[in-house]
Amino acid sequence: MSVETDSEAREQLIDLAAQFYDQFAEGDVPSMEVPTRTKSNIEYDEDKNVWVYGDRTSTRSAKSVRGAGKLLKAIYTIDFLAQQLDEGRSSTLRELYYLSESWDLNEAQFSSQDESNDLVEDLEIVSGATREDFHMRPEESGATIMGPLRLREQTRRGEREIHCQEDVGEGGYQIPNNPDTIDFLDNDADFVLAVETGGMRDRLVENGFDEEYNALVVHLKGQPARATRRITKRLHDELDLPVTVFTDGDPWSYRIYGSVAYGSIKSAHLSEYLATPEADFIGIRPEDIVEYDLPTDPLSDSDINALESELEDPRYQTEFWKEQIELQLDLGKKSEQQSLASRGLDFVTDTYLPERLDEMGVL
Amino acid sequence: MSVETDSEAREQLIDLAAQFYDQFAEGDVPSMEVPTRTKSNIEYDEDKNVWVYGDRTSTRSAKSVRGAGKLLKAIYTIDFLAQQLDEGRSSTLRELYYLSESWDLNEAQFSSQDESNDLVEDLEIVSGATREDFHMRPEESGATIMGPLRLREQTRRGEREIHCQEDVGEGGYQIPNNPDTIDFLDNDADFVLAVETGGMRDRLVENGFDEEYNALVVHLKGQPARATRRITKRLHDELDLPVTVFTDGDPWSYRIYGSVAYGSIKSAHLSEYLATPEADFIGIRPEDIVEYDLPTDPLSDSDINALESELEDPRYQTEFWKEQIELQLDLGKKSEQQSLASRGLDFVTDTYLPERLDEMGVL
Repeated sequence: MSVETDSEAREQLIDLAAQFYDQFAEGDVPSMEVPTRTKSNIEYDEDKNVWVYGDRTSTRSAKSVRGAGKLLKAIYTIDFLAQQLDEGRSSTLRELYYLSESWDLNEAQFSSQDESNDLVEDLEIVSGATREDFHMRPEESGATIMGPLRLREQTRRGEREIHCQEDVGEGGYQIPNNPDTIDFLDNDADFVLAVETGGMRDRLVENGFDEEYNALVVHLKGQPARATRRITKRLHDELDLPVTVFTDGDPWSYRIYGSVAYGSIKSAHLSEYLATPEADFIGIRPEDIVEYDLPTDPLSDSDINALESELEDPRYQTEFWKEQIELQLDLGKKSEQQSLASRGLDFVTDTYLPERLDEMGVL
Repeated sequence: MSVETDSEAREQLIDLAAQFYDQFAEGDVPSMEVPTRTKSNIEYDEDKNVWVYGDRTSTRSAKSVRGAGKLLKAIYTIDFLAQQLDEGRSSTLRELYYLSESWDLNEAQFSSQDESNDLVEDLEIVSGATREDFHMRPEESGATIMGPLRLREQTRRGEREIHCQEDVGEGGYQIPNNPDTIDFLDNDADFVLAVETGGMRDRLVENGFDEEYNALVVHLKGQPARATRRITKRLHDELDLPVTVFTDGDPWSYRIYGSVAYGSIKSAHLSEYLATPEADFIGIRPEDIVEYDLPTDPLSDSDINALESELEDPRYQTEFWKEQIELQLDLGKKSEQQSLASRGLDFVTDTYLPERLDEMGVL
């Protein structure tokens, strides 16, 4: 999964298009097979420790007018991406959608952005390259790192060496859209702490947690962008750092942890590239609500539905998650990470995190 | 508006509390008067060129139990903020809300975050200091700058000198929560280009627009945070740079322009500190939809309502805005800034922006 160079990515795309020619030549109706992308078709890969697609596939075939239209759009998109790679340029998913309006054949134009987004995902799955390999940028990410790490980023304007404490302002180092342009140079880090909210990230930085505990504080900014998950995985794999995830204590935040650790259904084809299965969940845990008597809000109906659906989700089939989710359903309550402030502004950095990280064997 | 030092901010808060003692001493029921914060009570200040509150005020008085509760909460909050300033610390609005749970008097605790947010705004208005002066941080901002500017940021860990092209990755320089910790050192900039979406910001940076046109590209990230508006104003006032705003072509984006240029109703008391009345709107303009034949979406009912409410909003009572809004209602359509990609990925930097900036007298 994932390719080394632009020309490799280009080749893999061209191969896809070539396959249609081969099918024509053999008298077959052109078609493209992709894994079915639903929860029931993701399964745990024991070797790789991540969730991947199962065996079920759906076929885009030129047998129907609709299927033929899809393949036509795939060809135009491959043509555009190959040219983009040739020229060393990049574009966003939204630009691709609009750009299709300039294509000469009306039938090749996308009718919605969902359609072009889905097609790019299909191409990732079928080619074995990633969107980043095609130079497709996300809309925005804005996630940051603060901590004892020196890195080199290859930008269009040359190399930049940046220390993520000494060379940045309080806002930290801005993770680029494609973090594979980064080389890690040296570091004094003991672990990665991935944090959901900006308020908590700023609290940790203000309290000097990254300095005192040699932590790389990665701001997830809610559901993390692919770039954030990718760099987190690389910090784990290449620097051998434990990864811990610190979020609010509600079902939506458990999904944030899940997407860091196990990948998401939408990008199960990229789990190997994006997921960090060894990532541990720090909290807020439902047991913390009881233990620390945290301020809470009642669970809404949609919270309850989300928790119940997590009980069925293959990614949460562990003793830990079953216990926590069932406890939360019993309590009928949720808490935010900033609710730790009810015990003082330093409680999180003086007590909560050190104790929990010690229990988890990280410190 | 806005104070110079932490001890000045502290003094202004203490003065507020002292006023209640004075009222007691004179046999008056303690009370606090704040301007009414509704659209009908904001008016144009011709001297300062921004929108400010009018004369109508509402009174929080201890005559009622509810009013007495509000004043009690104000006193506790002032006490917390004064201590925070003493210790050189800061906190988020959300932390303040949770922290109130640790206060000894139940009646002083906030019952919702809206209540604590509103109180901090009241304190800003009445004290004449800003939330940043009190060291209250926003939840998150994540906005960035890319362009020919060298600055010095005063961080808790010492000074950092950063050039916003040479010392940053492709993600740019991350604007800190309080940009008044920044000194501008030197620059080769000709103007500021404030951009709504991340996709367009990345397009401009990829195409080297900041280098070719000596532009400071400020990423607004949708409705801009206070920090983003503040630094934009400072770039205008201190470096004498024209400010231009480039957004999608819909009523919500015109509000983004409006909040950069004229301030918002919610923060009319801070217009002088945050608003850049000289900021010009580049587009996307409804006339662009016609002139450049841009891909569009139909206006929804809520779009139409928002446009009609802008026709009544004192901030949009200019020939330009009336014409554009009425044209848009006629067309029944809206366009995104990335829809310029329908004319190719370079159209925005080779043609659209240079022509428009030339017309506007910026280039």
